[in-house]
Amino acid sequence: MGTVDNNVYPTMENEEYKSRVAVPPPQPFFKSLQASLKETFFPDDPLRQFKNQPKSRKFILGLQYFFPFFVWAPNYRLDLLKSDLIAGITTASLAIPQGINSTFVPPLVYAMMGTSKDVAVGNIAVGSLLTGAMLSNAVSPSENATLFLHLAFTATLVAGIFEATLGLLRLGFIVDFLSHATIVGFMGGAATVVCLQQLKGILGLTHFTQATDLIDVMHSVFSQEHQWKWESAVLGCGFLFFLLTTKYLGKKKPILFWMSVMSPLVSIILGSVLVYLTHAEKHGVQVIGALKKGINPPSFEDFVFNSPYLGVAIKTGIVTGIIAMAEGMAVARSFAMFKNYNIDGNKEMVAFGVMNIIGSCTSCYLTSGPFSRSAVNYNAGCKTAASNIVMSMAVMITLLFLTPLFYYTPLVVLSSIIISAMLGLVDYDAVIHLWKSDKFDFVVCMTAYIGVVFGSVEIGLGAAISLSILRVLLFVARPRTTVLGNVPNSLCYRSVDQYPGAQTVPGILILEIGGPIYFANSTYLRERISRWIDEEEERLKASGEAKLHYVILDMRAVTCIDTSGIGMFDEVKKVIDRRELQLVLANPGGEVMKKLDRADFLNNLGLEWVHLTVGEAVGACRYMLHTYKPKSTADSNV
Amino acid sequence: MGTVDNNVYPTMENEEYKSRVAVPPPQPFFKSLQASLKETFFPDDPLRQFKNQPKSRKFILGLQYFFPFFVWAPNYRLDLLKSDLIAGITTASLAIPQGINSTFVPPLVYAMMGTSKDVAVGNIAVGSLLTGAMLSNAVSPSENATLFLHLAFTATLVAGIFEATLGLLRLGFIVDFLSHATIVGFMGGAATVVCLQQLKGILGLTHFTQATDLIDVMHSVFSQEHQWKWESAVLGCGFLFFLLTTKYLGKKKPILFWMSVMSPLVSIILGSVLVYLTHAEKHGVQVIGALKKGINPPSFEDFVFNSPYLGVAIKTGIVTGIIAMAEGMAVARSFAMFKNYNIDGNKEMVAFGVMNIIGSCTSCYLTSGPFSRSAVNYNAGCKTAASNIVMSMAVMITLLFLTPLFYYTPLVVLSSIIISAMLGLVDYDAVIHLWKSDKFDFVVCMTAYIGVVFGSVEIGLGAAISLSILRVLLFVARPRTTVLGNVPNSLCYRSVDQYPGAQTVPGILILEIGGPIYFANSTYLRERISRWIDEEEERLKASGEAKLHYVILDMRAVTCIDTSGIGMFDEVKKVIDRRELQLVLANPGGEVMKKLDRADFLNNLGLEWVHLTVGEAVGACRYMLHTYKPKSTADSNV
Repeated sequence: MGTVDNNVYPTMENEEYKSRVAVPPPQPFFKSLQASLKETFFPDDPLRQFKNQPKSRKFILGLQYFFPFFVWAPNYRLDLLKSDLIAGITTASLAIPQGINSTFVPPLVYAMMGTSKDVAVGNIAVGSLLTGAMLSNAVSPSENATLFLHLAFTATLVAGIFEATLGLLRLGFIVDFLSHATIVGFMGGAATVVCLQQLKGILGLTHFTQATDLIDVMHSVFSQEHQWKWESAVLGCGFLFFLLTTKYLGKKKPILFWMSVMSPLVSIILGSVLVYLTHAEKHGVQVIGALKKGINPPSFEDFVFNSPYLGVAIKTGIVTGIIAMAEGMAVARSFAMFKNYNIDGNKEMVAFGVMNIIGSCTSCYLTSGPFSRSAVNYNAGCKTAASNIVMSMAVMITLLFLTPLFYYTPLVVLSSIIISAMLGLVDYDAVIHLWKSDKFDFVVCMTAYIGVVFGSVEIGLGAAISLSILRVLLFVARPRTTVLGNVPNSLCYRSVDQYPGAQTVPGILILEIGGPIYFANSTYLRERISRWIDEEEERLKASGEAKLHYVILDMRAVTCIDTSGIGMFDEVKKVIDRRELQLVLANPGGEVMKKLDRADFLNNLGLEWVHLTVGEAVGACRYMLHTYKPKSTADSNV
Repeated sequence: MGTVDNNVYPTMENEEYKSRVAVPPPQPFFKSLQASLKETFFPDDPLRQFKNQPKSRKFILGLQYFFPFFVWAPNYRLDLLKSDLIAGITTASLAIPQGINSTFVPPLVYAMMGTSKDVAVGNIAVGSLLTGAMLSNAVSPSENATLFLHLAFTATLVAGIFEATLGLLRLGFIVDFLSHATIVGFMGGAATVVCLQQLKGILGLTHFTQATDLIDVMHSVFSQEHQWKWESAVLGCGFLFFLLTTKYLGKKKPILFWMSVMSPLVSIILGSVLVYLTHAEKHGVQVIGALKKGINPPSFEDFVFNSPYLGVAIKTGIVTGIIAMAEGMAVARSFAMFKNYNIDGNKEMVAFGVMNIIGSCTSCYLTSGPFSRSAVNYNAGCKTAASNIVMSMAVMITLLFLTPLFYYTPLVVLSSIIISAMLGLVDYDAVIHLWKSDKFDFVVCMTAYIGVVFGSVEIGLGAAISLSILRVLLFVARPRTTVLGNVPNSLCYRSVDQYPGAQTVPGILILEIGGPIYFANSTYLRERISRWIDEEEERLKASGEAKLHYVILDMRAVTCIDTSGIGMFDEVKKVIDRRELQLVLANPGGEVMKKLDRADFLNNLGLEWVHLTVGEAVGACRYMLHTYKPKSTADSNV
């Protein structure tokens, strides 16, 4: 880090360099408020496409905006249908023994309104558990089963209205707070947890914990060692081997891709036939068994709106609604990142909401996008939300006509399918990449993973998001300040850390402030600038170099400032004046200039000390240094 | 916004401009971790002053660090003592009828360790109320008064340990989140609330609400109209007039300053004599009356550490400790801002903590810096923390010898003193200044005010801080993007909003990204950049100008980036490539270069498209435009 002495800078011989930095023209308050509200809540500018369009076109565009179905449906082709058909039937066969109640109407709604191509709609475990727990505080499910059921529908209605409202209020940008690192950790953790839970099916256990964390699940598995069914385990491992082999082959040779996609369905058929022939259901292999026929009746006359119960229903609806939606949107965003497309948070919120509103009118409990079902859907090669329609139709046809067909389907095959779908979702490469490129993101990722595996999905997501937000707050609370030097053979001044060859200028300290100046950092910045000056003066004293006369603050990265920040400048100026130095501002942006001007700081500092670039500021300082005696030198000569 | 066509830019004729932007030299992980931890938790670099000092000096410096008393005590002068003496006696006479229990030991501790010059130590109302409410869940104060008392000491001990620990963990930077706007609103609100509460004393009421909000207080006042004592009100208004007059005179003529400072003490003496002579205590004027003699006994043997009660004590201690400390630090910071000096959040936390630890061993309840007492202290002209020592001594002497002297002191005079101290603290000018300079800060200020007046101190502070943090998150979630143009007669490119004369360059769109690129904004930025390109292409089409060929991103304000941000660049490049445009980066900083390099984005983009300044980037683009046919032009010619 040497010093430069060649005189290539513009000088102050002409007055041109005085007050060259513009204060932006004033804007009416409401215009700027409107602009910033628009950028915050309507960054996609949804109305732009409607401009200068005939009425009929506007109608179609509006329809497409609220129902993304009409965007992709017109271009729907046969090969997409083939993929969606297989994926839909696969998820349907998975859904049949799980939560068949809510797998008819909601998926149809989501297919019309959702923006994710991979979410498969269904109940999520935590939602059902929490609804049950919260409602049973008010009504006993055993003593008053009908009222309990009706309360559950009412809570679902409330959840739907709440979710849709959040979307209509344009709060969808909340999904942006699920960072890439959070998603990688969440997916890995959720895949681990779901795999562990399949041990129930693989080992043929009938009792199992409802908790999802590693410790409870392991305890549940190993406390029932004598209940393990080896027949079930053998069958499960056999199918898992088959599924993984076809998957591997499908990956290796694209021509064999159909094998990996078809294998889950083939497994179900093969498994059912096998059990039917060997009567394995009598030797420890659990089967789906008899299913209740018929589809959901309407339930819009069942809502409970009278006084003692409405409060509970509203509370339950809001709490479970927000948790279910958070999981669903995390799943949607995860697979979107995996496949490199984007979901629209606002539309997702509205889709989840409407799906629950209509669902609650047709005897459905709270639905969302469960992780395991969506993963199987993705794994079975789904291409669009049409797979939800196929799933819904397949479930309906089964419920009406085909329930006997599934009598012999072994549960263990379904577990194998879920495990094989999970194994691709633990993204080791992404974790290694995070470690290499950003340590903090790695910590966020591991927090999400450990939180999901040892706690729950909500704990994992909550901790990772809090950590991510903390990072943002820390960035603002502790903006970087760096010393700048002249990059050789240029007029540029850049960080001496980045350009070890950059040369400082004698008598001038150039500091860059690396972020907005807010209440959260104004105290820190004032102290830090003082410390930089201290350190520079000590260094100069120790090396016997020329004294410090000017402190230039490079403001190029200061895009925002509040009143505390403006107060900071007053204080920094006082500190610098007291040390008999001169403060110089370079590169101030529009907002900074506007606010410094309003606070009368610019006149106080003197417009001749505000420059367009660091180069010009240095030029002016050097000119002053050579022409006039700076005040501190003059003083010391007395 | 015209276009510029003069050829003053550096060209690419020599290869000099290729890959001129440096990737900073790699740093060992632990070194950079250590540096960033230091900047976060030790921004004041407390160890620096110890460097190269002899051992004895190090000892003194250490003592001064932990006990700021030793910094100011050696320079303590007689005129400071005069001010502190008056302020201390004034606050003591205020303290005597209030909470005499805790006004002996804690102020001494604070005077040694605190960094505020204005805080007067005492119990705060909300702390006492909350402690009582929480402990009475476990022990009945009427049935088991001794145990209840001992539990209160234990809770105070826990609160002290908790507060000191937060300080030792260097979490003092939390005070930085109390912005200037929050403080202005908080002080105004607290002054309003305290004034309203003095209506009790002025009107001579005996029963009064314990709530502090406007509605409850007003209800309490107007529901007891028949209890109002006119004698008390006349006396109160008379003294208030006297106090305000002397204050006004003291402000107008500096020579009369002693009058405004002495007037509270004079009022107390005058009031007492008046009551003694007229026996007004028998005609509706409440007096302090008989006080219990003697000072606090030690209580360190009274702590309750056994099982059923320890849990309650810990919970109570932590909750009340954090609330009391929040109020005390808000008060300390408020008066520091008023007088333009600084407090050290870490030292304040430790001081409050140690004060409560030692206090709990001497029969004191939870103490902090109550607003009303500190305001009277400030108003009586205190200069240093020595006023706390004076207060403590005055209280002790009174307790031992002088209790009869205060028998006739009318409570209404104390109310008048508090009201007159409050009236200077509602800072209308600051509110008007906030409205003029920053509308958002104005909203924060009003939120704090309304929250304190209609809710409580905690609600007001909490809401204002949340709003301030929301603003920071919004800044990060929605960074500004602006179009740059060439500032006439310079090589600089600046925002066309700030410089209406700046000229855009044909075929090139220059965008500045106004903040760090994080997970919270990477989706937004990608969409926003696409929209800028859309709008620019539409504009060019409409005006028949030359087609767009290059998109230059000015990265000078992008000081931080995470993995989501790097992913954003990949996506933006794809979008721009698909539109047959070329992406060019200008001005990338050290961290951005490092991470883009690690993610292999730089090689993917081509180092020749990364430039040190926007000017060089424009030069390179123009050279390419004139020399080679850009791909989109070439394609359209085919």
